[in-house]
Formats: sequence, structure tokens, C-alpha cells
Amino acid sequence: MKPLPDALRACLGQGVDAIDTPALVVDLDAMERNIERMAGFARQHRVRWRPHAKMHKSAEIALLLQRSGATGACVQKTAEAEALAAGGVRDIFISNEVIAPHKLLRVARLAAQLAAQGGHLALAVDSLEGIARLAAAMDQAGSGAGIDVFVEIDVGQGRCGVPPGAPAVALAQAVARHARLRFAGLQAYHGRAQHLRGAAERREALAAAVQAARHARDLVTASGLAVPLVTGSGTGTLAHEAASGVFGELQAGSFLFMDADYARNERESAQPAFEHALFVKTQVISVCASYAVCDAGHKSHAIDSGLPTVALLPSAQALRYANGGDEHGILYADSPEARLPALGDTLWLIPGHCDPTVNLHDHLVSVRGGLAHGTVERIIRVDARGALT
Amino acid sequence: MKPLPDALRACLGQGVDAIDTPALVVDLDAMERNIERMAGFARQHRVRWRPHAKMHKSAEIALLLQRSGATGACVQKTAEAEALAAGGVRDIFISNEVIAPHKLLRVARLAAQLAAQGGHLALAVDSLEGIARLAAAMDQAGSGAGIDVFVEIDVGQGRCGVPPGAPAVALAQAVARHARLRFAGLQAYHGRAQHLRGAAERREALAAAVQAARHARDLVTASGLAVPLVTGSGTGTLAHEAASGVFGELQAGSFLFMDADYARNERESAQPAFEHALFVKTQVISVCASYAVCDAGHKSHAIDSGLPTVALLPSAQALRYANGGDEHGILYADSPEARLPALGDTLWLIPGHCDPTVNLHDHLVSVRGGLAHGTVERIIRVDARGALT
Repeated sequence: MKPLPDALRACLGQGVDAIDTPALVVDLDAMERNIERMAGFARQHRVRWRPHAKMHKSAEIALLLQRSGATGACVQKTAEAEALAAGGVRDIFISNEVIAPHKLLRVARLAAQLAAQGGHLALAVDSLEGIARLAAAMDQAGSGAGIDVFVEIDVGQGRCGVPPGAPAVALAQAVARHARLRFAGLQAYHGRAQHLRGAAERREALAAAVQAARHARDLVTASGLAVPLVTGSGTGTLAHEAASGVFGELQAGSFLFMDADYARNERESAQPAFEHALFVKTQVISVCASYAVCDAGHKSHAIDSGLPTVALLPSAQALRYANGGDEHGILYADSPEARLPALGDTLWLIPGHCDPTVNLHDHLVSVRGGLAHGTVERIIRVDARGALT
Repeated sequence: MKPLPDALRACLGQGVDAIDTPALVVDLDAMERNIERMAGFARQHRVRWRPHAKMHKSAEIALLLQRSGATGACVQKTAEAEALAAGGVRDIFISNEVIAPHKLLRVARLAAQLAAQGGHLALAVDSLEGIARLAAAMDQAGSGAGIDVFVEIDVGQGRCGVPPGAPAVALAQAVARHARLRFAGLQAYHGRAQHLRGAAERREALAAAVQAARHARDLVTASGLAVPLVTGSGTGTLAHEAASGVFGELQAGSFLFMDADYARNERESAQPAFEHALFVKTQVISVCASYAVCDAGHKSHAIDSGLPTVALLPSAQALRYANGGDEHGILYADSPEARLPALGDTLWLIPGHCDPTVNLHDHLVSVRGGLAHGTVERIIRVDARGALT
């Protein structure tokens, strides 16, 4: 494992002032409160939770979540699964399709490796071709290990997955015909519904998604095949999947850090009140009469789901962050009570979208005691940063 | 230096089929033609060129550009300068402001290191405070080396830089008062004008920018200080700066790879016809009747300047790429001649914006002989990937 860069090692045990900018910073206290809320929510609803590591991409965090009650980790990519496994995670679900034969061979080898460690690997499928190729790769790897296979159904997202009727049954039956593939259930994720702003809109979208998942589950069961699990959900809709009686596992990941986009959702009363726990620390490097320029642009934080907001710490002003390109942000003081920061001042931004923001950084500088006066307790590696394949 | 990952080493000397997806791929022949065009253009206009390495972030490419006639490299961040210097680049201009004292100490140390190697470091400033802090850091580093300092003026971008009048003169004079700071000229970049679509709009914006730069240069000269260089420009406007008689150096970087966004500009006749040389190879992992899903989303390519387009290789169809989230793209066949790709097919995407796309990848898989039938000649490291500070 690569040693920590000098600048990061130097700030361990130091106050937040020692963190160089721009940097991605985790408020550990807020993150741990979010974990407690999620663990309590899952216990209360008697569902499993398998938080999506496509968000945090860190073996250390995946293991922390497991110690807090999570079943294991979800990932979207084979390379993410490999990176987490290298960091000690043993129960991993690649909730996505893999089609390339050489990549399926990597999947098969990882399944054997995890099985030898007492763990499990699972993969989603949505085509007969994908199932046949996976079975061939498992035979080629020749370890005797098996792999859990979830049939992905499209419950409204309009991306991967088959319609939740006869095609799902055909795929489930096809999985069950292969000795080394274990039909593990249905993958049903309505990604689009996560970001519907109104609670009523999300409720309506999820009512249809739950109905579709129930229908598919009942059809597969009627075909003579038990459906051990229906898995899916996200931070925007988890109250609905948890209460559905259909979903047995929640994959929500963003609850851990909560981004500015999820904060724009109207919250369900049944949804735990998650806090922002992920911030970009940035410094003002240029000022003029009408705006200030800081050193964090969209190479520091993703803007696919909107620009970051400026965190309102007790000492901060009401500022608006505007896009200043790859390496800069422009700060405006629109409201009467706002005052532009001075040259050299530091600020905390709440990223618009956690997942691709974390993917821009190698490390999460993790602070205990709050952003105003806390100290750097540890540096969490983003093990699967850039793990695209 | 970290060894190449197995999957990348394995594809060296192999055909493009061996490249795992998603991957960032450079068409070396197209890139080299772009370099020849740029070198010829600069010779013809008798201007220096110092291509911006914030785009390619690679020491290997910076050195290739220097062998082709470039003066050196521009960067935006101290950490980028350090990464290029570690890769052998000795003439570097940080065309941005640095304010943190500990970061200015890194700048000062790098200036000493490069000077000892017969090279140069330069930095932009836009405040008296920044100049004083830089001078203090140079004194603290205590090597006796100097640093080139450019005063940044705002010529229409509305970001960093002082107005191109008396404030520029004051800063130039302040620089000249410090023994270890050499006043090297003016930094004048109109980033916003690069992406104005119409040739006439860009011409108008640049006429004003050139006028502002000339005015500032003349004022500083009249104050008794020689202005050795006015530097700036980008791929969208370089014909104007080159013909201005004011700008002595072009910083354009994107010409090397040309992204989908720059291709949407109406081209000036005076502008060289640069080709797309940067592609994301992606594979179809799911299909249904009305669309196909590929494995490249916005963790593979930046979408701040629009979605990627699908490259029309001889064998490809007219397809439209739609946003499928962090890890997926949705492909539609809108036109009558288009046909959806099949499961497992691979496609080449042209990223909307080169700079933040390159920053998502550790390596550029570099192909000789074209994307249809070429072979992988070498793997170029993205040395400054994630170099944010």
C-alpha cells in the first residue's frame, strides 16, 4: 500500500487549520451519527442494509459499516470489488452487469478468492447472454466456488434490467440451471426516483416500483423458484422500500455523507434526518469588490447534480458559490447579512453529489470534534478511486 | 514510480480490442498532427507556446511538446508543478494565484530545485499581499534562487486578476522591489471567450481583451518597467492573440486532444483545424428495444461542458449518448440510418471537456494506427491526476 503523502501525514493530530486546500474532509462525528441512524432504521424495519460503496469507495468505511450491522458492500464495477477485497471486505455485490469475458473471468476469480475466505461475491444479470458468459467464466476459473446471481429488473429507472414480468422469470430459471450460479433474488433500483424533490412524487414512483418488484417476485416464485431476497433502494426513497414488505435489503450509500442534492429533497417524516458529513475545504486566493475567488473548482467536487453550497458554520457568512471552472469557485455575497471573505480565508463547501466527488480524491481527511475546532484523527484511503473497469 | 497495472501492461503491443473498458484512449497519430499544426502556427506568427498542462497533466506529454518547440508548461496548481518537475519538466509557469504560506514555501523550494537544474519557475500574482507572502517564502527558502512573476490582469474573464490599469502598474512595481522576484510580464487569459460559439463573438471579445492587455502593458512600460512578455490565450481564441502583436506566448492546451465542446465552436479560418485525439472506449453491457446501455458514465468523462458524442468511425452508427449517471451511458438511435449496438459491442466517445476528463484517469492508453485497427504503442501516465493543492 502506498505511503501517505507528506502533507497528509503532517496534518494527523493537528487542527483543521493544518489541512491544505482544496481537500475532501469528513466530519467523523456527523458520519457516525448517520451510521447510527441508519443502523437503527434498518433494525426497526427488520431489513438488511448493504450500503453502496460506489459512493465512499473505501474498504475502511465498508468494514466500519459492517461492524455497525451492514451485511456487506455493493459496488458497480469489478475493479471496485477487487479494490475493496484487497482491503479486507469479504461480502460484495456487484449490482451491475458485466459482459466482457476477460472481466467475467476476474469476477470468477474474485468469487473463488472471497469464498476461500468465507465470504461471498454476487453479480447482477439482465440477459441470457450475460448468464451464459458468467457460467462459462466460472467453469473456466475452475475453482469449484459459486457465485450469487441477482436478476435485475427495471422498476422505473429506464437503464439496466429486464421488465418485471416473464423476462425476469426466464432469466431466473436460466441462472438456476447452472451449477455454479446461485439464484439469489432480484435487484430493483429506481435511481431516478431518488432525486424527485417532492415527498409525494417519490412516494408515487416507489409505489409503482414496489408493485413491479412484488409482481416479479411472485411470478418467479410461482415458476417454482424461491426468491431469497429483493434488494435495491437509495437514500432518497429508503423509507418506502423499508416499509414495503417486498425489499429485504437497502443499498442506500449517500446517507453516510449526505450531499447538497439530497438535502434539496423534501424529507419524508419516516426518513432518518441524515446530516452533511462531507466537505471540501477551500481557500480564497483572489478578491475584488464584488466577489472572491476560491481554489476549489470542479476538479475538486462534481457538479453533475448542482454546484456545492457553502456550509454555514457559526463563523461563516451566507455566501453563494458560482462555477469558476476546473480550478476555481466564485463566491458572491447576495444577501444583506453576507460579507465577502478576505484573501486567505478558508471555507467549507458541501458537494452537490458525494459519489463522483469522492472519486476525485485519493484520501478523505477525517476530522473529530467538528469543522470549526476539530483535529485530524485519521486519513481514510479512497481505495477504489478511479476503479472504472 | 508505481508499476503499470497488469491489465494495462498486458495490452501493450496488442490491438485496440485488448483495451478494457471504460478506458481513456489517445489516438497518437491525431495528437501528433495536432502538435505539428500548433508548432507551425506558432512559427508562422512568431509567438512562443507554452501549452497548459492542466489539460494533459502528464510530464511525458509536456516534454514531447517541448521537443516540438514549446517553451515549457503552464499549470494551475503547485502540486501539478511538483508532479511535472518530478517527471523531468524544468520550465513551468503556475498561471494562478497561491496565497497559503506553506504552499508558497513549496513554490519557493520548487523554484530553487528547477533553477539548480537550469530551469525556471514562474507564478502569477494579483495582490500586494500575495507578492509580499511570495517574497517572504523565497527569503525563508533561502536558496538564493529567483522566481519569475507575472501580474495577472482581468481582460474579461471575471475571475482572478486586477483591472488592466493602475492596479496592474502598482503590482508590477511591487514585484520589482523584491530582489528574488523577477517581473516577467502580464498574465491575461479570457477563459470565458474560449467557448463563445460564434467566430464573430469571439473576435469581438478578444479585440477588447487585446486592447486591455495592450493598455496595461503600455502603462507598466510608461512607469519605467519593461514588460518582457504578455502571456495567455486558449484553443478557442488563439488566432486572435497570435495576430495581436501584444501577446508573445500562447497557453492553449486543448488543441492537443480537442474535445466535443471546442468542436461546437464556429472555426476561424485563421485557426488550425485540430482533430479529436482523445476518446473513451466503452462497452455495451445491457440492451433493450429502444436503447442500449454502455459502461461509461460521468466517472469516466466530465460532463461540465456537455455530454460526450459518439465518434463516427467507419463502422459506427449515428448514435446519441444520454446521461445514465455515474457509471452508465444510454445510447439512442435517433436517426433513420442509425442502428442500436448489440450487447458486448464497443464504442468510442469524444469527451465534452478534455481537462477534467483526463483528471479522472491514471493512464492514457495510447494507440498507433487509428482506433479501428491500431495497436497500443504506449501507456502515458497522468502524473498530476488529482494534484489539487
